[in-house]
Amino acid sequence: MTIDRREMLGAMTAVAAGAVAGVAGVAEGATTQPKKSGTRLKKIATEEACSVPEVAAALREVAHTTWTNLDMLLVNAIYNAPAGTRAPFLPELLDIDAGRLKVMDDNDVDMHLLSLTAPGVQMFDADTGTALATVANDALAEAVKKHPTRYSALATFAPQDPKRAVKEMERAINSLKMNGFIINSHTNNEYLDLPKFWPILEAAEALDAALYIHPRAPSDGMAAPFRDYRLETAAWGYGVEVATHAVRLMLSGTLDHFPKLKIVLGHMGEAVPFWLWRLDFMGRPGFGNNMRTNKLKPSEYFRQNFVITTSGVEDHLALRYSIDRIGVDSVLWAIDYPYQPTTPAVKFIESAPIPDADKQKVAHGNAERIFHINV
Amino acid sequence: MTIDRREMLGAMTAVAAGAVAGVAGVAEGATTQPKKSGTRLKKIATEEACSVPEVAAALREVAHTTWTNLDMLLVNAIYNAPAGTRAPFLPELLDIDAGRLKVMDDNDVDMHLLSLTAPGVQMFDADTGTALATVANDALAEAVKKHPTRYSALATFAPQDPKRAVKEMERAINSLKMNGFIINSHTNNEYLDLPKFWPILEAAEALDAALYIHPRAPSDGMAAPFRDYRLETAAWGYGVEVATHAVRLMLSGTLDHFPKLKIVLGHMGEAVPFWLWRLDFMGRPGFGNNMRTNKLKPSEYFRQNFVITTSGVEDHLALRYSIDRIGVDSVLWAIDYPYQPTTPAVKFIESAPIPDADKQKVAHGNAERIFHINV
Repeated sequence: MTIDRREMLGAMTAVAAGAVAGVAGVAEGATTQPKKSGTRLKKIATEEACSVPEVAAALREVAHTTWTNLDMLLVNAIYNAPAGTRAPFLPELLDIDAGRLKVMDDNDVDMHLLSLTAPGVQMFDADTGTALATVANDALAEAVKKHPTRYSALATFAPQDPKRAVKEMERAINSLKMNGFIINSHTNNEYLDLPKFWPILEAAEALDAALYIHPRAPSDGMAAPFRDYRLETAAWGYGVEVATHAVRLMLSGTLDHFPKLKIVLGHMGEAVPFWLWRLDFMGRPGFGNNMRTNKLKPSEYFRQNFVITTSGVEDHLALRYSIDRIGVDSVLWAIDYPYQPTTPAVKFIESAPIPDADKQKVAHGNAERIFHINV
Repeated sequence: MTIDRREMLGAMTAVAAGAVAGVAGVAEGATTQPKKSGTRLKKIATEEACSVPEVAAALREVAHTTWTNLDMLLVNAIYNAPAGTRAPFLPELLDIDAGRLKVMDDNDVDMHLLSLTAPGVQMFDADTGTALATVANDALAEAVKKHPTRYSALATFAPQDPKRAVKEMERAINSLKMNGFIINSHTNNEYLDLPKFWPILEAAEALDAALYIHPRAPSDGMAAPFRDYRLETAAWGYGVEVATHAVRLMLSGTLDHFPKLKIVLGHMGEAVPFWLWRLDFMGRPGFGNNMRTNKLKPSEYFRQNFVITTSGVEDHLALRYSIDRIGVDSVLWAIDYPYQPTTPAVKFIESAPIPDADKQKVAHGNAERIFHINV
């Protein structure tokens, strides 16, 4: 499938109009944080969602199918909103220029590390997903080129076809100079510990590019208890899905093959840091009736392969726990724009009761190191 | 179904013999913690597993069926061990007398709050489950009567028949003077937020008896990603299962009807405390597209209805986080005998870097209050 960008953009007139009209309605506090005299905290936000018209249009097509996958609730709400209504979040997602920069300016945010929002290109057939990944990566790279001090970006790829995914990953880093990768947890209910996906892990490691495992709703095989009370959302299911993904990577021993791979978990590590003691005890090497082959303890994989971001968990106690548990060099600040309001996320890091040197690392230094940001 | 205790005990000769023979092989460190001169920390352990021969025999029958439920791995390993081998944990589980007391003495543990180990009576048909709950409760009450300063006990019941469950709950508290209840998460893949189970919640609240939601493996509808790498175990699946159960109770609004119900979550609250900020933001009242009816924020339910125990999470950072997040009056010490060794669990609480008054609460005071222990 070839994507004709002009044709697609034409088809997206309604969505784009909504995007422009919607900017004024952004539910963002516009109050700039008071700055301490003489000090200013540089802030790079590392899980900042966006979309591009081509992907939004394709997701609207997905919304018209009869899938029972739990992500369909979100896909329907955002990409198939009734005509004449404001699609929740879509205007903000599609704006990777002035509207977004204004929110950042108003809140004293230096940079968004942009990423194509969930479910990315993972709900499409392999050809469509592969083609749309290219389109999305080009668009994000273009935004970075236009505003190099304000945006950096993670590249997307279609795990549905690992071989072509690897080619796009190489293009994204080598040609587009993007800053890492993002994947939205499972792909057609399969996880990255399956050997067919290992070329993707190998490529990320070889390219020295971190792989952000972003949430999507729980996979079909674990969906049932999440079908009530909107449990599939960021309120609960997202975290269970990604944390389970991370634990599969650890207890399968997959990470023994990729010791230099860096994986990023949002939402304060999806609570995996809080589980590390129990994971170590019950998941120690050799314990698991030969159904596990992990050579390291989970906490050792965590130290070797993972960093976390604070997106959506503005809890100073959780921040302190995480820093003490996995080390201050492994914790990165994030907003989760536009799903979380910017002002409280900024206040969270500005007011964090941690030493200033640690705050500098969390707010920007670690992001610069992990994502190779040099501006 | 009527259980003839003498007949059943006869049939269990092999298991019982294994139990006696096995005590010497207990993998417990026997070193008593050095006591500080002049001080001694009273210790009531609140998630201490046991079994009775009748339930063990019935689970051996279950092991011979073709269920695909994830608990079958544990049921098979423990209750259907090959002849001539030592069934893991079974001897320790069946000993609610001298062997257990010796481990407690050797480690300076005052009391075990006994409970019938997972999956309890929840894998049986309603008649068998109901009958076995009575047998188990009688046996545990007998152990408490024999050693009233060393044992207290939680009562079991069969949620498969909520009406008869309530009768047994009333008998357990009013006649047997037991200290609360235990349930092993889902029953036939259903959770306590379903109105058919509400009489159980109503009874626990009316009897002023706390309900411990103990893990079992994830329910069938969420089992798929846990079928690899023994992920269904205490290493991961147990926590996901119980935490999801707790979140269902909160986001369904079920707890609005039972404001005085006390629910106990083991394993440092199954990490739910660490999720409270995000649960509050994404699960706040009115947010959830009318598919949720909760009147309170999750953290408000947590404060109102939940306490946690430290079983299986001997992490001082997690202890500190939990005390700071939910309050020291809501954190109780537990070992998780025999699945966790006693010596490190004792060392964990003895050496916890918290004020002595807090340590007294966690080690015994909160247990005395929540479970009405007065010895």
